[in-house]
Amino acid sequence: MKKLKRSQRLVDMTQFLLEKPHDLLPLSTFAERYGAAKSSVSEDLAIIKEVFEGEGMGELQTLAGAAGGVRYIPRMPMDMALAFVNRLCGQLEQSDRILPGGYLYMSDLLGLPSLMEQAGKIIATAFYGVEIDVVMTVETKGIPLAYATAAQLGLPVVLVRRDHQVTEGSAVSINYVSGSHKSIHTMSLSRRALREKSRVLIVDDFMKAGGTVRGMVDLLGEFNAEVAGVGVLVESGAVEKEERLLHDYVSLVKLTEVDSKVRRISAHPGNYFSS
Amino acid sequence: MKKLKRSQRLVDMTQFLLEKPHDLLPLSTFAERYGAAKSSVSEDLAIIKEVFEGEGMGELQTLAGAAGGVRYIPRMPMDMALAFVNRLCGQLEQSDRILPGGYLYMSDLLGLPSLMEQAGKIIATAFYGVEIDVVMTVETKGIPLAYATAAQLGLPVVLVRRDHQVTEGSAVSINYVSGSHKSIHTMSLSRRALREKSRVLIVDDFMKAGGTVRGMVDLLGEFNAEVAGVGVLVESGAVEKEERLLHDYVSLVKLTEVDSKVRRISAHPGNYFSS
Repeated sequence: MKKLKRSQRLVDMTQFLLEKPHDLLPLSTFAERYGAAKSSVSEDLAIIKEVFEGEGMGELQTLAGAAGGVRYIPRMPMDMALAFVNRLCGQLEQSDRILPGGYLYMSDLLGLPSLMEQAGKIIATAFYGVEIDVVMTVETKGIPLAYATAAQLGLPVVLVRRDHQVTEGSAVSINYVSGSHKSIHTMSLSRRALREKSRVLIVDDFMKAGGTVRGMVDLLGEFNAEVAGVGVLVESGAVEKEERLLHDYVSLVKLTEVDSKVRRISAHPGNYFSS
Repeated sequence: MKKLKRSQRLVDMTQFLLEKPHDLLPLSTFAERYGAAKSSVSEDLAIIKEVFEGEGMGELQTLAGAAGGVRYIPRMPMDMALAFVNRLCGQLEQSDRILPGGYLYMSDLLGLPSLMEQAGKIIATAFYGVEIDVVMTVETKGIPLAYATAAQLGLPVVLVRRDHQVTEGSAVSINYVSGSHKSIHTMSLSRRALREKSRVLIVDDFMKAGGTVRGMVDLLGEFNAEVAGVGVLVESGAVEKEERLLHDYVSLVKLTEVDSKVRRISAHPGNYFSS
C-alpha cells in the first residue's frame, strides 16, 4: 500500500477497527500497512480512541509489549441504550401489532438490520467482560439478533434447529416443554457445531416462561458446554413467578400488557436497565 | 456536540457513513454535528472518498444542490470478491464436509458473521444500480446472508416461513415442488410483510434445481410484487439443464462435484465471476 497521510490513515484505521471488533491488531500491522512509524500510528490511535469513547461507540484498548496491539470493543453507553429501547417500546406499543391469541407482530422490526445491530450492540455490552466462545440461538426469529450480537463480539453463531436436518450431519436432539403452552417440542444441534467446554451466550428474540431457552440450556449440557449468559430482546411479563423456568437473563424490553380486548400494549425497558 | 478538529471529524464521519449505507446524508447534518463550515465538511468528505475508493470499500456519492448530500454505497471490487470466493472454495473443498447422501456441511461457515458480511457485500455489489425495496429469504440457513446483504443495501428483510406461525398474523401460503426431490412443500408469508409492487431481491444460501427460489418467486406473484434479482451463495452444478427451474440468478460459488465415495468436493467461483 502506498504511503498515506495522517488524515487518510485515520479514515482507513477507523474502518479497519470497526470491521474487526475484539480482534487484537498489532501496531506493526498498521505501521506496515501505511509505511508509517509506530509512534505515528500510536498518535493516530489516540485520536481515534478519543472520538470513539467521546461518541459512545465503545472502547479502544491498547495493550503494550511485544504481544501488544490495539483492540476495539463495541459498547453502548447506558443512556444511548435506554433511548434506543424507549423508541423501540414506542414502536411495540402500536395497537395494530396485536394478533389473535394476544400475540404481538414484531417481524417488521426484526426485519430491520440496523435495529438488530443496535440491539445486538446492547446485548454485547450487557455481557462485557464475560468470557464467551460462541453465541447460540434456535431458529427462527432470534437469528438476526444472535448474528448482530456475535458480530459485535467477534464470535461465531451456533444455530439450533427445530428438526434434525440432513445438512447438519449427526446431531443431538432433546425434547423440551414450552413453559407457556405445556406442549412438547424437539430441538436438535449438529454434533460438530459445538466444542466441549464451550462458553455459550444464548440469544433469542422473545421469552415468555423461558421453556425454549431452558431447552437450549439442557442441550448445552449434552455437549458439556456452559451457559455464559442469556440475552433476550423482549420478555413477556405476563408470567406467574412460579411458572418462570429461567431466572438469570438479560432483557431489553418487558411487555407488561397485551390486551386484545381494548387493544392496548404496554412495553417498558427490560431488566438490563433496572439491575 | 463540541467542536471537533479535522482529524476527529474524519474518524467520526467515517463511522457515521459506514453505519448508514445508502442513506443520503445532507452536508448540513455534518456541519451542525461538528460546528464546522460546509466547505470544511466537503474537504473532509473528499479525503474519505479518496480512501474508501482507493481501498475498494465502495463509493462515496456526492449530490449537489438543496436536496443534496453524501451517500456511501458499499461495493467490493471484482478482484477482492474473487480472492474472497477462492478462499471460501478452499474451505468448502475440505473433504470432512461430506455428509451421508452427498450433502455438504456448511453451517460452520454460515455461522461466521464476518464471512456472511463479506458475502453479503458481494451480492449487494452484484445488484448495484438495480432498484430494490426489500430483501427476501426463506427460513432457515439463508437468513444471515439475507441480513448481511440487506445491511449493505440499507434495506429491510422479509422472511418467508415454512409453516404459518401464530406470530405472523394472516398469511398467504403456497405449495411448491422441490426440484431435486420432486417433493411438495409449503411456504408462507405474512400479509403485512410486503407491500404491493415491491421490488424484491431474493437471497439464499444454497440452490440446486431452484425449486425453493421458484417458490419464493411464485409467492411474490401473490403479493403483486416483482423479482428484482436472485442471489445465492452456493449453487450445485449437479443439475441437468432441463431440471433447472430458474435460470436468471447470481451465484458466488458453484459446486461441480461432491463425490462421497472418493470423498472429493470441487468448488469454483460462481456465475457472478463469469458474466
